Amino acid sequence: MNDTTNTHRRRTGSVAPNGNGTREQLVQGALRVLRERGLAGASSREIARASGVNLAGITYHFGSKDALLAEALLEAIRGRLAPAMDALRQDAPPPLRMMAAVQALQAAFEDARDLLPVYLEALVHAPRADTLRESVQELFAELRGFLADQIVELKATGFLPAWVEPEAMATLLVATGDGIALHAAVEPNAIDHRAVAAQAVELLLSARSQP
Amino acid sequence: MNDTTNTHRRRTGSVAPNGNGTREQLVQGALRVLRERGLAGASSREIARASGVNLAGITYHFGSKDALLAEALLEAIRGRLAPAMDALRQDAPPPLRMMAAVQALQAAFEDARDLLPVYLEALVHAPRADTLRESVQELFAELRGFLADQIVELKATGFLPAWVEPEAMATLLVATGDGIALHAAVEPNAIDHRAVAAQAVELLLSARSQP
Repeated sequence: MNDTTNTHRRRTGSVAPNGNGTREQLVQGALRVLRERGLAGASSREIARASGVNLAGITYHFGSKDALLAEALLEAIRGRLAPAMDALRQDAPPPLRMMAAVQALQAAFEDARDLLPVYLEALVHAPRADTLRESVQELFAELRGFLADQIVELKATGFLPAWVEPEAMATLLVATGDGIALHAAVEPNAIDHRAVAAQAVELLLSARSQP
Repeated sequence: MNDTTNTHRRRTGSVAPNGNGTREQLVQGALRVLRERGLAGASSREIARASGVNLAGITYHFGSKDALLAEALLEAIRGRLAPAMDALRQDAPPPLRMMAAVQALQAAFEDARDLLPVYLEALVHAPRADTLRESVQELFAELRGFLADQIVELKATGFLPAWVEPEAMATLLVATGDGIALHAAVEPNAIDHRAVAAQAVELLLSARSQP
């Protein structure tokens, strides 16, 4: 993500010339603290210590600690989702693209197990925390928009039937992914997230327009 | 729920003769505090005040405040789910039963909007809180078992195809319901949970065995 496309930084109005190194250090430090201590334990002092940046750097680069936490978390989530989105953008038959996207999501999920509780905590706290809510809503709108566009295309080519509503289906897909993540976090031993995702894929495949 | 079937009370070993009135007062008081203050704000003192029961009553009837909170929340959730489960048990064609169950869930969801944030908070905190985790796992196991049994039956009658795995599909259904609830809580204005659920129903209907 570069300076000009970074809406969070633009929003806080705190773009620092040549501040990219420090900024990145703060993001990485914030992520480390979030993983280790969760949202409630991520104090400015801890983040400064973990980043090797002084306390004032947080306000200088992000406007507030909450803005830094929101951006660090959302950047990490975006990074995890990127391979799945790339898979969907491929030039391949829809079922193959979908399968590749689900595999990419599963790999990201297993790779980011330690970030998952913080992400879920952030979602639950979002309704009560303005900065976080705005960032989360921005991420979801982006994700739903991307999926809805894909669905519109699949309807246009006749691959998906008329009853599919792109916006509502896109929301269902995002919600289902987060629901599986939530349950896998609560019951890591009882839930085989790959088997659950496989059922979701089969359901989506059975929705194909009948020839 | 009567005394002999109440596994939580049996577990804490604190059955009080003629204590049903006080017990119920504590459960109702705990729910009121949970709705108003969330999990973090539900202190023993607040619950005692809201219930009109003295502090010692919590330990006497439930063993601990956490056990009371877990039981109050889970009892409330079970009560909300009961009409949907009754709808699935009806003697009617599977699509009608499913539609009735989804309608019952939607009504329960709209009716319990004020309890939803606490429920989601409880799920997210469950991995770090023993009493809560055990209760939540018990509820989920019960729910998944019920749904898996229904799915086994629908496979036996040829209504559902061979690729449906009862356990994994049951988990997917519960996870999807919670995922929709989670997103509706984060974006109450952007998400039409009825439209999203309608897409889920259509997906399930397209999974029917082809004649």
